[in-house]
Amino acid sequence: MKQYIKHHPWHIIEEGFDAHLNKISESLCSIGNGRMGQRANFEEHYSGETLQGTYLAGVYYPDKTRVGWWKNGYPEYFAKVLNAPNIIGIDVTINGTRLDLAHCNIKSFNRTLDMKAGLLNRNFVATMPNGVTVTVSAQRLFSVVDDECAAIEYSLQTDVDATVSVKPFVDGDVSNADSNYAEKFWNILQTVSDIKSSYVLAETKKTQFRVCAAFKSSVKVDTQNIEAQHYSNATSAGCTYAFALAAHTTAVIYKFCTVTTSQNYNADALDGKAIVNLQRIVEKGYVKMVDEQKQAWFKKWTTSDIVIEGDVAAQQGIRFNIFQLNQTYTGLDERLNIGPKGFTGEKYGGSTYWDTEAYCIPFYLSTANQAVSRNLLVYRYKHLQKAIENAAKLGFKNGAALYPMVTMNGEECHNEWEITFEEIHRNGAIAYAIYNYINYTSDIDYLAEYGLEVLIGIARFWAQRVNYSTHKKKYVMLGVTGPNEYENNVNNNWYTNYLASWCLKYTIEAIDYVKSNHKKAFKQIVATTTFDAKVETTLWKDIIKKMYYPVDKELNIILQQEGYLDKEQILVADLPAADRPLNQKWSWDRILRSCFIKQADVLQGIYFFQDEFDNDTITRNFDFYEKRTVHESSLSPCVHSILACRIGRIDKAYEMYLRTARLDLDDYNNDTEDGCHTTSMAGTWMSIVEGFGGMLVRNNVLHFNPLIPAQWKSLSFKITYRRALLQVTIEGKKVTIENQSGQTIQLSVNSTLHQLKAMETYSNN
Amino acid sequence: MKQYIKHHPWHIIEEGFDAHLNKISESLCSIGNGRMGQRANFEEHYSGETLQGTYLAGVYYPDKTRVGWWKNGYPEYFAKVLNAPNIIGIDVTINGTRLDLAHCNIKSFNRTLDMKAGLLNRNFVATMPNGVTVTVSAQRLFSVVDDECAAIEYSLQTDVDATVSVKPFVDGDVSNADSNYAEKFWNILQTVSDIKSSYVLAETKKTQFRVCAAFKSSVKVDTQNIEAQHYSNATSAGCTYAFALAAHTTAVIYKFCTVTTSQNYNADALDGKAIVNLQRIVEKGYVKMVDEQKQAWFKKWTTSDIVIEGDVAAQQGIRFNIFQLNQTYTGLDERLNIGPKGFTGEKYGGSTYWDTEAYCIPFYLSTANQAVSRNLLVYRYKHLQKAIENAAKLGFKNGAALYPMVTMNGEECHNEWEITFEEIHRNGAIAYAIYNYINYTSDIDYLAEYGLEVLIGIARFWAQRVNYSTHKKKYVMLGVTGPNEYENNVNNNWYTNYLASWCLKYTIEAIDYVKSNHKKAFKQIVATTTFDAKVETTLWKDIIKKMYYPVDKELNIILQQEGYLDKEQILVADLPAADRPLNQKWSWDRILRSCFIKQADVLQGIYFFQDEFDNDTITRNFDFYEKRTVHESSLSPCVHSILACRIGRIDKAYEMYLRTARLDLDDYNNDTEDGCHTTSMAGTWMSIVEGFGGMLVRNNVLHFNPLIPAQWKSLSFKITYRRALLQVTIEGKKVTIENQSGQTIQLSVNSTLHQLKAMETYSNN
Repeated sequence: MKQYIKHHPWHIIEEGFDAHLNKISESLCSIGNGRMGQRANFEEHYSGETLQGTYLAGVYYPDKTRVGWWKNGYPEYFAKVLNAPNIIGIDVTINGTRLDLAHCNIKSFNRTLDMKAGLLNRNFVATMPNGVTVTVSAQRLFSVVDDECAAIEYSLQTDVDATVSVKPFVDGDVSNADSNYAEKFWNILQTVSDIKSSYVLAETKKTQFRVCAAFKSSVKVDTQNIEAQHYSNATSAGCTYAFALAAHTTAVIYKFCTVTTSQNYNADALDGKAIVNLQRIVEKGYVKMVDEQKQAWFKKWTTSDIVIEGDVAAQQGIRFNIFQLNQTYTGLDERLNIGPKGFTGEKYGGSTYWDTEAYCIPFYLSTANQAVSRNLLVYRYKHLQKAIENAAKLGFKNGAALYPMVTMNGEECHNEWEITFEEIHRNGAIAYAIYNYINYTSDIDYLAEYGLEVLIGIARFWAQRVNYSTHKKKYVMLGVTGPNEYENNVNNNWYTNYLASWCLKYTIEAIDYVKSNHKKAFKQIVATTTFDAKVETTLWKDIIKKMYYPVDKELNIILQQEGYLDKEQILVADLPAADRPLNQKWSWDRILRSCFIKQADVLQGIYFFQDEFDNDTITRNFDFYEKRTVHESSLSPCVHSILACRIGRIDKAYEMYLRTARLDLDDYNNDTEDGCHTTSMAGTWMSIVEGFGGMLVRNNVLHFNPLIPAQWKSLSFKITYRRALLQVTIEGKKVTIENQSGQTIQLSVNSTLHQLKAMETYSNN
Repeated sequence: MKQYIKHHPWHIIEEGFDAHLNKISESLCSIGNGRMGQRANFEEHYSGETLQGTYLAGVYYPDKTRVGWWKNGYPEYFAKVLNAPNIIGIDVTINGTRLDLAHCNIKSFNRTLDMKAGLLNRNFVATMPNGVTVTVSAQRLFSVVDDECAAIEYSLQTDVDATVSVKPFVDGDVSNADSNYAEKFWNILQTVSDIKSSYVLAETKKTQFRVCAAFKSSVKVDTQNIEAQHYSNATSAGCTYAFALAAHTTAVIYKFCTVTTSQNYNADALDGKAIVNLQRIVEKGYVKMVDEQKQAWFKKWTTSDIVIEGDVAAQQGIRFNIFQLNQTYTGLDERLNIGPKGFTGEKYGGSTYWDTEAYCIPFYLSTANQAVSRNLLVYRYKHLQKAIENAAKLGFKNGAALYPMVTMNGEECHNEWEITFEEIHRNGAIAYAIYNYINYTSDIDYLAEYGLEVLIGIARFWAQRVNYSTHKKKYVMLGVTGPNEYENNVNNNWYTNYLASWCLKYTIEAIDYVKSNHKKAFKQIVATTTFDAKVETTLWKDIIKKMYYPVDKELNIILQQEGYLDKEQILVADLPAADRPLNQKWSWDRILRSCFIKQADVLQGIYFFQDEFDNDTITRNFDFYEKRTVHESSLSPCVHSILACRIGRIDKAYEMYLRTARLDLDDYNNDTEDGCHTTSMAGTWMSIVEGFGGMLVRNNVLHFNPLIPAQWKSLSFKITYRRALLQVTIEGKKVTIENQSGQTIQLSVNSTLHQLKAMETYSNN
């Protein structure tokens, strides 16, 4: 755990420079716009510890799978989020010496991410080895308005008259830190630099994504424009500005950047499109771009901000989480998804985990236009054929679909058998997200258009994945890994069995709805899926009726899986501190046979289906399992925080909240340097809104049962619900809900129903 | 399956040349002498498909572990059996063209392994691209008398007068086909060629094994000795003989080779020792070396031969298996063990699996001096400290020992968690081998010298590896993989539980014996192991008493593991042929959740402890499990063959025997090109002697209950039992046992006791 980031409600501030923290700050201060993003690397050359990272959403490389012992069914490749051509580089040479903070005496340094405006600022004063003291002020943005574009303002002064050479460039000679076989992933096709632009045209190996990374720059000293010398070589292109700089005079470099990719244009039009983009933003100018950026972020915050009074650290934490989510995914492109590290690092590869459905969708449902979460659902719809192929590869038939554990284009690219083949509950999360979306938005017709086909594929998978045990006279599900990945290949994981059975039930309901309300669509779906309603649903109903659920009657609890109580029962409280975290201190087999739980498993199921369990049941299971849970997944504390609120355990809820909110800012797991835990940030948001806010949609009514920590003066959040924008404020017991929209809305606050008209405010005090 | 090897009782014959089969023949015709070995690669250059392999027992490289997802506890390295400097090479150039069978028109080709004599012969007539037809006759041996030495006789004729250049060489520029990161594993320290010898001094990276691979050669045309031109370069050394060869005149090349290693000599003495070796064998001469080789192999066959009359294929199969075992391991060096591929390939790495204890020890017990199997036990004794460290790495304490799944020097080097950490029954096999050795030899004092310390380490492991289930009120063993590797991470594998409990019992017995009979040694062992007899054995007795054994009362069978009957019960007979072998056709998860069994599991336990189960129990369990067993491990059919004999199922026994005996000769699994399945060959031997011969030692009496297939006219085998050499011959119901030694021996044949005096013959007819 590190605590060097200054607390501030809107800014992430690094004050002073510690080279060992640089990679962490690079992660934290990453900026992006849903289309592309960039770690907070320096513009000028830096020879110290750094992880260079420029990422383009959806552009990946299928790195050959690395595995010691191949298992049948493993995918051939592991998709790598690619480090793309570097567009931010600006080399600075003063009196013949290249500016490199690794070799300077740094007098002052400040790197600040302005989350309100979506701007990254960096200022430093440093004395170079040649004795020149240079003052630099750099600002950059990745435009959320014009998402193929970015811009940098880089100004510099020297303390003496100096000869300066400034070289903005774009460079395709980049590599991934985590490549499996130390290969480079890009072929450079062309490098050009002329008066219109400097660009590198590059293509990924194997996947053949083509990109044009281009920029146009200008340098001004006082009012004088400096002339550029253009150059290009095998991998990069740029221009050099050489000039004399009088002491304490400011040289300002503007670098307008754009990246166009073959995802959006014909491969041979990329340079032309890039030049058009550059013309547009150069004409617009840097100041206007900043202005637009601020306005756009103001708008995002209007619908998604959370205000915590009385706890700046908690305030900064939640805003950081919201900021990262908003700059990772905008919902504008249905081919994209939310990678586990967003645009902050390359680790874990792939872009899509079940995190999207289980954690991120609730965030986007409440804070963005409903088209955003709909796009996330459609993304999976478009991968349905691949999911069917994936299931077929594992021996499933007849259109059964198994969505991958990790994917870029719908193909599986993870390769641990106990996860890839067995952590199949992810399939249920995808069905649950459809339910969740419809429950929240009331857009039930989504079923006819996309949802039902996906549900049928998933239901078919479950129906084939269980088998009837003649021994138990029940359907059982053997060889699975539940959300608690500290158990592998178990039989009858309750969560998976429950979710599978629910999927079958929900699919039958969906069939009934579409059949009755969208006859034509239903006919089409039946034809497409060669669905035999009678035979298939008969089996499904039998499975629903005879599914096996492990429970312990003596303790009156649900059993995480069969045999769980045969384990030695030790509580987390009794674990020596030196043994934590288990995943670093214990061997894998010891973890597996212990009773310790990585993340919510039974409790994940109770969270999903809260209305199906009474408070006593939740309390009993919470008390049993939470005591055995080590929360070594970033996805764990939020679910516990929400359930703790539900059963009135506010201290436990606050403890769990603290574990999730500042995970990256305080480098809790000592891994922020690899990038941020982007998807789990949505869990932090959930623990605020669904936990402390107690928000839940039940029978088309929005419910709130708020309960906030005594430490907080107030909690205030904004949510969008069925086109109504609500500002919810909680101060102790006082709840105020302001309807900032033109919609009338039905609300339940602490179990009392209210009608809230347009622009009306409810208060219980 | 391929059937190109000609059937012959003593020879492995490849007639004609098919380049696609070359790698298979290279494996099958490998020769070795326990110290080193060589695939049947050609002496002359060959540019076609080949796997070059020269192997030195115990010389390995710790290749960096390759793994996609690291699990805590994984070893840092995976030991690779090294391809060592090539000593067999003889380059031949005729009229300026290099002889290369890949570019010749091959008129005739014969490669024959003479198993009786331990010689590899190769003869061919081939027309080279330059029109010259060359006749080559090559023979080589790896001396079993002088195990650092090998020799080659290579003679050649041409059909026209020709200018010939012959270049014998030794080359250190070799690589492993299976290196994880495409590295080379040798540093070449020195290359020398002069009148005394040509040699390469090389050292392995990381492990720093130093070897001197040397040779001395001579070339004679008619009676004329050709003069050598010596050369050496960066990686190789050799000499060139240039001469005119008249048509149909024979040039004979003798190449005397030796390899000395730092395992046996000071690193700086290797070249000197090599030169001494060369002087000795050159002086001895090739003919005498061949003679000695024949005599030595004659002696080996005297104690280990098996004769099957009426079935040449079966005869060739069993001799091939015996030959491979005898040339892989001689028992002369207690640091060595039996690698899964012997000297026939580099795959699987490591040298020691539980195969040694469970399969190989019975073979060496019966066919070699008892010192040989004793050395195999002492090998594990010497690794005890490493086994204790290995267990400690996984969280075990107080001198608990877990022997590795795969090892070179006692350190674990396998890395699949479900195997490395969980296939712990291997520990039991090591204890069982001690019991087996003592039971067979009556050398019970081995316990005091070495055995007990190992047993205590193993017993401690089991005592910590079980836990008491308050739920079951029994000791349970969670998260294991049994011998059937088509189940992973199961709870209460019956075989493992039974074996663990047996280990505890046997250790207590061993303690009692040593305590009573070797007071001083016992005191020493107690001190070394800080053994607390009272506390520890009290716990062990409690575990023995309360161990949980899964059974099914309805079917009256042992359960392979808890929950086995929840699986869909399908029989192998009902599997579509297209689905076989499952390990190539089904995904891993499907295999895991199926009821199908890779190799004997419950039946392995019944085999080990045959006397503890009556025939009805064995029959019930055999019938249940064999029907579900796919025998996709080379170690499976033999155990089934033995038990089938035990319960009178001779047809099943013969079917199982056929699966194992010609596994490599007929390339059953399409993988012989990688090398032979050396350790499973001992299982073939077991199925003959323990199965058809029905041999068993019970209460110090050697029992036979023979039963042979109707297809066989007779079966005859030799075994050494407590210094008595017996020739057992079975013809139908007739059993003849000839005591070829000076020892009197007690025998039971078909449950009737007999005393067989020195040189006496028993017959039941």
